[in-house]
Amino acid sequence: MSEPITIEGSVCPVPIRKRGQIIIGHGSGGKLSHDLISELFLPSLQSPALLAGNDAAVVPAQKFRLAVSTDSHVVYPLFFPGGDIGRLAICGTVNDIAMMGAKPLYLTAGFILEEGLELGLLEQVVESMKIAASEADVQIIAGDTKVVERGKADGLYINTSGIGRIADGLAIGGDKARPGDAIILSGPIGDHGISVLEARGELGFKSNIHSDVAPLNHLVASMLTVSSEIHVLRDPTRGGLATSLNEIARQSQVGLILDESQIPVRPAVKAACEMLGFDPLYIANEGKLLAVVAPEDVDELLFTMKTFPISQEAVMIGEVTSGPPGRVLMKTAIGSTRILDMLAGELLPRIC
Amino acid sequence: MSEPITIEGSVCPVPIRKRGQIIIGHGSGGKLSHDLISELFLPSLQSPALLAGNDAAVVPAQKFRLAVSTDSHVVYPLFFPGGDIGRLAICGTVNDIAMMGAKPLYLTAGFILEEGLELGLLEQVVESMKIAASEADVQIIAGDTKVVERGKADGLYINTSGIGRIADGLAIGGDKARPGDAIILSGPIGDHGISVLEARGELGFKSNIHSDVAPLNHLVASMLTVSSEIHVLRDPTRGGLATSLNEIARQSQVGLILDESQIPVRPAVKAACEMLGFDPLYIANEGKLLAVVAPEDVDELLFTMKTFPISQEAVMIGEVTSGPPGRVLMKTAIGSTRILDMLAGELLPRIC
Repeated sequence: MSEPITIEGSVCPVPIRKRGQIIIGHGSGGKLSHDLISELFLPSLQSPALLAGNDAAVVPAQKFRLAVSTDSHVVYPLFFPGGDIGRLAICGTVNDIAMMGAKPLYLTAGFILEEGLELGLLEQVVESMKIAASEADVQIIAGDTKVVERGKADGLYINTSGIGRIADGLAIGGDKARPGDAIILSGPIGDHGISVLEARGELGFKSNIHSDVAPLNHLVASMLTVSSEIHVLRDPTRGGLATSLNEIARQSQVGLILDESQIPVRPAVKAACEMLGFDPLYIANEGKLLAVVAPEDVDELLFTMKTFPISQEAVMIGEVTSGPPGRVLMKTAIGSTRILDMLAGELLPRIC
Repeated sequence: MSEPITIEGSVCPVPIRKRGQIIIGHGSGGKLSHDLISELFLPSLQSPALLAGNDAAVVPAQKFRLAVSTDSHVVYPLFFPGGDIGRLAICGTVNDIAMMGAKPLYLTAGFILEEGLELGLLEQVVESMKIAASEADVQIIAGDTKVVERGKADGLYINTSGIGRIADGLAIGGDKARPGDAIILSGPIGDHGISVLEARGELGFKSNIHSDVAPLNHLVASMLTVSSEIHVLRDPTRGGLATSLNEIARQSQVGLILDESQIPVRPAVKAACEMLGFDPLYIANEGKLLAVVAPEDVDELLFTMKTFPISQEAVMIGEVTSGPPGRVLMKTAIGSTRILDMLAGELLPRIC
């Protein structure tokens, strides 16, 4: 009953209850689909809207602006130190919603399953989604399941879309950075990318690095209670810190200048990157945020952020300048200044 | 410039402008991802929210209930007579929202792309999404693109999630059918499934059947103006008419009795089904709806429905009875009565 399932070198950490495999009929829309939903998905992911079993979920909305986001998750392997595709699918969309300063309320979940997928593995992923949704305090209100033939997917892919509520008067966005603003980073970078590499067996050593995958919405909610001058929030996922900063610089038409010595990177991540020829600035994170804020609010924000375990190492890493617009510069540890560009090409495919 | 691209026997009907293929770097989140979005997606799918380029879209909401739905689309092949995966992805989610009596407002689009996908083909799919979204009068406000290695998907998969507005006082749902209600079907069944089979080369003859894939929201809006006694709406997609009716019978704990002679099936669909051993009652539709309504409203509803090209052949096909609860019966053309169950197993994989 508790035999671990090993997936391409990574281990599913929770005991498996369901036996059997996904067959094409699980995607038929008929009886087998209904059985899969009622026996595997609903026990974990139940909400009144899902249980209603209609073509769409019905939920109340008050008079406010909505933040809406979508993300497909194709991470390989499905399980990695510190997380799995289910946790990632919840946190990824919750965090995108939170980056608008919104309170995430509702998620949808769309599964693309490969014929032959172990039901027990799917159950663990769904259970992991349940736990992450509970942490983030969001409801999964609509779902969909498709099955494709063996060899037409890679185990499973999960799309999550989300809806959040934006409080009145809030105006957070990538185009709101202003010269003089401070740039805050919530903690060490690169953990997620390196943990996935380790799960792939590509590190060649045991790093002890765990993915940082976590919901950031409660952190954001607290930050918003202590500062009304948070101008930009962004989670540096695919493309890493450098790419997110470039996006902000372009959207706001400002320059950004970073202090390399302030950017936290765990020694094990640094070691892995040096060995593999990667730059941690371009490695994906799944539980970190960047905040561009008025300089007078930095101290109080850092104080508040450090009360959360996920952002105990929050730090100011740079500031916004008037130009050159769209350019990100970094003062290096040895005193020179280099241009940080967006990620070009691909560093780590299927990191999320 | 206008050379057709042939995909596994089916032909992309629109001239191809973009040359080149999807490479892994298009999913990096870095420069190549940005180029793909700005050069291929945004020209077709632009909306103020998408252009803002933030982690989530921000849209206004008044005080109303929201209908929310999600659907992943994995249809094979990508192009079929009368439609393609892009049109299907828009209509599928628009229709699920409309089946709650809601006005679809916003869609998200999540793409999973296989390395090597022709950019020109992707462009045509996106253009087709634009046209369908325009027909349905919905905005695509958020998107996501992931790329997986060759052999880990089948060209492309598209998830769409949607949000609609439900008017005050409306209470439509699968559990609202009442004994005495009439069952209306908006037109002939089976067209979509047979058109996909034809595109797969599995018919063995030229059927001239086109998929019915179309947005149903304007039809639903008109129906709601002439009847306040529409109790259930459902689009009989995967699993076909029989499966949708079974869902309604179970949700409402009522019996349903159909008159087989009233159920419209095009001769070519009937012929194809007879030849292949399929029952049209279980074949997927993508532009048809079932309505369970108060009997006194049937005439006016049918009159209104027939003013729409997509429902010119709307017809009452049966009624709701008090029992046996959850059972769907059909009076056959020869006068006997048979039980219609849900689809068991799989008839046509990857039909949507």
